[in-house]
Amino acid sequence: MEALQLNGVCYTLSREACLLWKRISSKSFLGSHAFPRSVLWKPISSNPFLGGSHVPKKGGVQVVSPNIASPDLAVELLCAWDDEYEGVIVDPYSLPLSSNSFASTLRASLLNWKLKGKRGIWLKILQEQTELVPIAIQEGFNYHHAESGYVMLTYWIPDEPVMLPAGPSHQIGVAGFVINDKREVLVVKEKCPCSCSGIWKLPTGYIDKSEDIFSGAVREVKEETGVDTMFQEMVAFRHAHLVAFEKSDLLFVCMLKPVSFEITIDEKEIQAAKWMPVDEVLKQPFYREDHMSKRIIEICVATYERDHSTGFIAHKLTSKFDGNLSYLYYNENTIV
Amino acid sequence: MEALQLNGVCYTLSREACLLWKRISSKSFLGSHAFPRSVLWKPISSNPFLGGSHVPKKGGVQVVSPNIASPDLAVELLCAWDDEYEGVIVDPYSLPLSSNSFASTLRASLLNWKLKGKRGIWLKILQEQTELVPIAIQEGFNYHHAESGYVMLTYWIPDEPVMLPAGPSHQIGVAGFVINDKREVLVVKEKCPCSCSGIWKLPTGYIDKSEDIFSGAVREVKEETGVDTMFQEMVAFRHAHLVAFEKSDLLFVCMLKPVSFEITIDEKEIQAAKWMPVDEVLKQPFYREDHMSKRIIEICVATYERDHSTGFIAHKLTSKFDGNLSYLYYNENTIV
Repeated sequence: MEALQLNGVCYTLSREACLLWKRISSKSFLGSHAFPRSVLWKPISSNPFLGGSHVPKKGGVQVVSPNIASPDLAVELLCAWDDEYEGVIVDPYSLPLSSNSFASTLRASLLNWKLKGKRGIWLKILQEQTELVPIAIQEGFNYHHAESGYVMLTYWIPDEPVMLPAGPSHQIGVAGFVINDKREVLVVKEKCPCSCSGIWKLPTGYIDKSEDIFSGAVREVKEETGVDTMFQEMVAFRHAHLVAFEKSDLLFVCMLKPVSFEITIDEKEIQAAKWMPVDEVLKQPFYREDHMSKRIIEICVATYERDHSTGFIAHKLTSKFDGNLSYLYYNENTIV
Repeated sequence: MEALQLNGVCYTLSREACLLWKRISSKSFLGSHAFPRSVLWKPISSNPFLGGSHVPKKGGVQVVSPNIASPDLAVELLCAWDDEYEGVIVDPYSLPLSSNSFASTLRASLLNWKLKGKRGIWLKILQEQTELVPIAIQEGFNYHHAESGYVMLTYWIPDEPVMLPAGPSHQIGVAGFVINDKREVLVVKEKCPCSCSGIWKLPTGYIDKSEDIFSGAVREVKEETGVDTMFQEMVAFRHAHLVAFEKSDLLFVCMLKPVSFEITIDEKEIQAAKWMPVDEVLKQPFYREDHMSKRIIEICVATYERDHSTGFIAHKLTSKFDGNLSYLYYNENTIV
């Protein structure tokens, strides 16, 4: 939410209005006085992290707002909107283009937010404006998270412990246990020169962005071995800490039913793949020493041999919170 | 791995030697010729993301190495070591202090790595050296991930699709289902002005860094309600995408047995907490509309009423891969 001064009156801008205002102003399409009040007074939208498919023209004229510390002096403020927690989300697509202008606007905005009693400030800086990052850090912002294309910075105003949620902390891996009617398990030897080289092991991999666990397992097995499968149940997961980048890791072990049997390996990642009698898998010296991997195979074999499911199945359900469909994994026998 | 020129001979430096070399050089403790060869030739250590507790003196003299493009011209290169995937990890504690020096050293190092056939480059920049970030981005680096204190940048050298693992993609939440002998469930009303305000719901929260799921559930219930509990089993989890920061979210629902019953709320986060008859929980209009939340409560109640476990229990096991203990969650009935 930001303030807009029209004829000396301060209006609250919704996110949409703020962006529309910039697009119009930057095109010199209309004078500010022609800006319809009804647009400005749209209610503030919630959960603004979910938006972002629209990319309005960058570096437009900043919204002019009265500085509430010195009401006579109009200063430029960053275009931003409120979140649900008395915080502020800065519009990443309308940051000033020059470092000097960004520095002064950020400073004025921080003062303004402090005076307004705001709490957490979210500042996403796109990769093409990276030169603004040191300026924000200099002003007291901290890194929150990043991915290809942007970095998210935060600033906590209250004089109390930071209550902002942490950034993403986990990578999600999947392992596929595929067994045929001859009790042979689909195993691979990885190509990397790492600690697992030389071992026949289950196909594994990380899930893609926004991919479901069961789809990720089916995809990884297909990519590494060429074998088509169907998800049956998730039988175990391992939770490990301080793995890559000192972050944590969840590995979900999925029982998959093979629907094709011919092997075609991905030569970039895999040295070899084959159907291996399950007893031979466990006889490898590695499995005698690695209690975690051994137990995983034992659980998979036991699941295969049982006549009823003991793992979790994925059920698609709607949540009213966000209106989205997502999957709930649970044991179907719990509520039959 | 980096090269060191001594009497015109190029030596390979292990990580430890590289850091030791810097400490010695920056203290002018010994001339470079006194540096013992045996230290320089230590084998390269693997998985360097896990190290980092040592913080050698920053901004020491850079290792002088022959530029393999122009062998007669000695240039400064960044102190770095090899990873297991033909990649390079730059030492974040020894980056040049000045932007100009960093720019030229980074450029020379990139050329050197390209000529050596290296693949992925990992460059962690600490928050106090943020002014180096725009320089690295300018040279073609991308954001990988960040958290308070640092940003990790990557550069992919081969002329083929990037094969570096993505950064962390998930937040991990926990919900605690605590029921007493009168079939009353421990519920809270959250303080935030968000979509769930006014609803009596299970206590929930995000797990802390490196915290286990079962510990996180017990801690969140204690923090929000003051009630002490013991973890019994994890009965379901929800996997949702495009939640905060367009990332994904896993919410693990844990059955917890109460061991104390008096309620003391955390007034910062919670408006109210109470023991509520389970039928009343589900009679709230919200639960009639929110299929996801309704099913979660139903699964918890069914689990409470069953005489055997259908959820997952945590078992501590060692893995040979990293020598660490971590938890494997599975249904104990699978392999009895």
